[in-house]
Amino acid sequence: MTPVLQSYAQDTWQDGDGPAKPLLDAATGEPVALLPATGPDPAAMLDHARRTGGPALRALTFTQRAAILKDLSKHLRDHLDEFAGLSTRTGATRRDTAVDVDGGIATLAVYAGKAARELPDAAILPDGEIEPLAKGGTFAGRHILAPRLGAAVQINAYNFPVWGMLEKFAPAFLAGMPSVVKAAGETAYLTELVVRRIAESGLLPEGALSLLCADPAGLLDALSPQDTLSFTGSAATALALRTHPVVAGQAVPFNAEADSLNCSILGPDVTPDDPEFELFVDQLVTEMTVKAGQKCTAIRRAFIPTGLADATAAAVAERLGRVVVGHPGHADVDMGPVVSLAQRDEVRDAVARLAADGRVVFGDPARVDTIAADSERGAFLSPILLRCDDVEASAPHEVEAFGPVSTLLPYDDLESVADAAARGRGSLAGSIVTADHESARVLVESLAPWHGRLLVLNRDDAGESTGHGVAMPQLVHGGPGRAGGGEELGGLRALHHYLRRTAVQGHSDFLAGLA
Amino acid sequence: MTPVLQSYAQDTWQDGDGPAKPLLDAATGEPVALLPATGPDPAAMLDHARRTGGPALRALTFTQRAAILKDLSKHLRDHLDEFAGLSTRTGATRRDTAVDVDGGIATLAVYAGKAARELPDAAILPDGEIEPLAKGGTFAGRHILAPRLGAAVQINAYNFPVWGMLEKFAPAFLAGMPSVVKAAGETAYLTELVVRRIAESGLLPEGALSLLCADPAGLLDALSPQDTLSFTGSAATALALRTHPVVAGQAVPFNAEADSLNCSILGPDVTPDDPEFELFVDQLVTEMTVKAGQKCTAIRRAFIPTGLADATAAAVAERLGRVVVGHPGHADVDMGPVVSLAQRDEVRDAVARLAADGRVVFGDPARVDTIAADSERGAFLSPILLRCDDVEASAPHEVEAFGPVSTLLPYDDLESVADAAARGRGSLAGSIVTADHESARVLVESLAPWHGRLLVLNRDDAGESTGHGVAMPQLVHGGPGRAGGGEELGGLRALHHYLRRTAVQGHSDFLAGLA
Repeated sequence: MTPVLQSYAQDTWQDGDGPAKPLLDAATGEPVALLPATGPDPAAMLDHARRTGGPALRALTFTQRAAILKDLSKHLRDHLDEFAGLSTRTGATRRDTAVDVDGGIATLAVYAGKAARELPDAAILPDGEIEPLAKGGTFAGRHILAPRLGAAVQINAYNFPVWGMLEKFAPAFLAGMPSVVKAAGETAYLTELVVRRIAESGLLPEGALSLLCADPAGLLDALSPQDTLSFTGSAATALALRTHPVVAGQAVPFNAEADSLNCSILGPDVTPDDPEFELFVDQLVTEMTVKAGQKCTAIRRAFIPTGLADATAAAVAERLGRVVVGHPGHADVDMGPVVSLAQRDEVRDAVARLAADGRVVFGDPARVDTIAADSERGAFLSPILLRCDDVEASAPHEVEAFGPVSTLLPYDDLESVADAAARGRGSLAGSIVTADHESARVLVESLAPWHGRLLVLNRDDAGESTGHGVAMPQLVHGGPGRAGGGEELGGLRALHHYLRRTAVQGHSDFLAGLA
Repeated sequence: MTPVLQSYAQDTWQDGDGPAKPLLDAATGEPVALLPATGPDPAAMLDHARRTGGPALRALTFTQRAAILKDLSKHLRDHLDEFAGLSTRTGATRRDTAVDVDGGIATLAVYAGKAARELPDAAILPDGEIEPLAKGGTFAGRHILAPRLGAAVQINAYNFPVWGMLEKFAPAFLAGMPSVVKAAGETAYLTELVVRRIAESGLLPEGALSLLCADPAGLLDALSPQDTLSFTGSAATALALRTHPVVAGQAVPFNAEADSLNCSILGPDVTPDDPEFELFVDQLVTEMTVKAGQKCTAIRRAFIPTGLADATAAAVAERLGRVVVGHPGHADVDMGPVVSLAQRDEVRDAVARLAADGRVVFGDPARVDTIAADSERGAFLSPILLRCDDVEASAPHEVEAFGPVSTLLPYDDLESVADAAARGRGSLAGSIVTADHESARVLVESLAPWHGRLLVLNRDDAGESTGHGVAMPQLVHGGPGRAGGGEELGGLRALHHYLRRTAVQGHSDFLAGLA
């Protein structure tokens, strides 16, 4: 019998209600789990998090929280095989699972390590030095960072059911705020499994983590000014959340990370004989195929010097021709399906809009050869490479196909490619592939205001590079404009979303004893 | 003839259009200036700021910008008498002008000094250390802060026509972003005068400062993701700005500072013989009367131990009885009028709502004795002290009378006063008046998540204290929830609103040369 997902509220597993929606295996179309329409009362969930989880977390120091996070990371690593097995049903190959599951667990470990090394064994964090405010030295000011008193509500996207939860949970937990997680419907069964293993571990204080597997009706209405709201997903949903009467009216801190039209730029100095040419091609193929292109950081726009357009198109097409598509559990498969048939339809629709401003140079959006899978029952797609020779066309800079799809865009010079990259109106990640430090520096400086993260890739760092698409826990993840205007991760910077900065004025002796 | 205010757009003074609204002297009711209904095209203003001001500012280093700011501060100081003269017409006594005009000019100087000492002679700021991302040392990450490429739009409130502009302009300018200032209607003539003196100085690069003296129709529609929007004013307007389709839809960084129901708490240990008793009473009277209580940081709720309720009420009333109300230019006057007759009506209305949950113990909202002025033609009000013995009543925690009005609220113990203070749902500033470090520490820790700034006042620091209501440039100014959820000032922290943080990944050698 297909299991019905439960929500973890008030530290117990609770059944939902209403008509349940079947969540289907991305590769086979078979039901994996049922998602109830409604879950436990969100107001009661939040209340429990605030009244039980918050005080319990605030009673711990940063050092104590870091130790729990470290143990949790180890505990989850012991269940890796179980998670990886279920992850396959989301369409993930083992390589894809490494990004989501292994990556999520590693993020906990990195945060635990950073907090243990860099944060004090205290519950309140000083921020900056004591500021003298008077000449006689009896009156001064200083800033402290103290946890907000509410719940950290986290609305996640389907493409990272594990990493998406853990990368938000880790800094909230370290800061001293309880997390209330809304899992994305399509892949909620994997999030639910991980939360089950977390709950069973007994490592977390009561109320520190809640999970909603259902429609989030009423969740936003129950927010208060001491809560926070973090979101990963589409720009349209980000807008709805940001303008919600309670979120906007009570100034609930809101952080959004939305999909964007990320770019990769092959430097003007590169020739097909340079290693950077192959690095550019390899990285593009990787970004198109990992998680079947369902990464908010994936390269959607690949800018190449005009003179290299044909050579690049040929090289990428050649590499894409060797990509084996099929059941993600099969050892020979390079790329699995997208998450659902509905998502496949959306990608096909987006490809059609992109093709209106260019042409498809590799792949057929309507069909794909698969191994160990039925290409129609599963949500399979061929990798699709488009080419648009008019960098002024609008579709490549506006239409995001959230699948294994990218567009080659020839450019003339550094200034024009910087302008074209900016036409994405804000991106999470951009790559600059060149060994020439000067053109890399010029591009970094012109692209920085439009990007959350920029990778300079070349022969010197490629061997150790973590790649264009990977959000590292040490570095900020987020971007301006279309990318949502938010920031996640960035090492301990992420704790600042959950800590409130307060200026305290008084006698220097009092201030010195404060934090 | 009454002058018609102009806007400073495209580096020229431009006439507005449409029916002009007379701006009246707060004390006499005589017209001071006319405010046109419409101004120059906001889209063209923004465009000029972005295309001319932005590049000019980004061509300068932090050190160079700091030097300009220092010169500007000196230049404005030379015009202090002229500004003070006109400031009187807003209803400001010389003491009030000191907070707005002298304080605004001093804020420029503090920012110039901090930037000169603490920022590099460079155009891009490094943020944190290089983060190793791989064991071999060839791949790492670091964060840089670079100015956003748009305009810093600043919508100011009537009560600080000078400080409100300069405290936003200083960090934007230092960060390298041009400012587009929307002056508040009631007192726009003073803002306009200061901008005239700034423009005449020739100190600023072209496009670095624009001023809109008119209705801001179309301003928000013209925003882009590289712009920023800062606002000081009411919660209702903050909500409208925050949810504007362009602001929310393009994730334009938004910072709000809204009025709040700030508190002052007399410690439970204080007796009427302690100096803290008098400090509490003095400070309350000061906050009620400076700028006729038209400060977003003014004390609206004065919490006192139940046993001291009668004594405090009597002491405050006695002090208020000595406050001389009248024409703000008269040397004997302690308190001038509020800004306008309409504002006086609003205050009277709010007092009536507050009185429904308590009683007036000093002052008559309907009448006041004045010197050197007609109490009906000018927007004069008596200071009004209310008392509400039921700390659970709602009005004192929800109704803000933006004038010389405060409510005494007796409390029983530390826990209950902390809960009651939190019922303001987020405040800019709170005071804790006690010499007992332990109760001060408990209150600081419980109030911090609800406050932007907390002052601990006692016999040891009172001599040098800058007071409850003064937002110091070194300390953050802003507060959660009702106070808008934003942050201004805080020394160089304020530059972060105007700089975008970008993570850059690459070879360590490349990263070392970046910033």
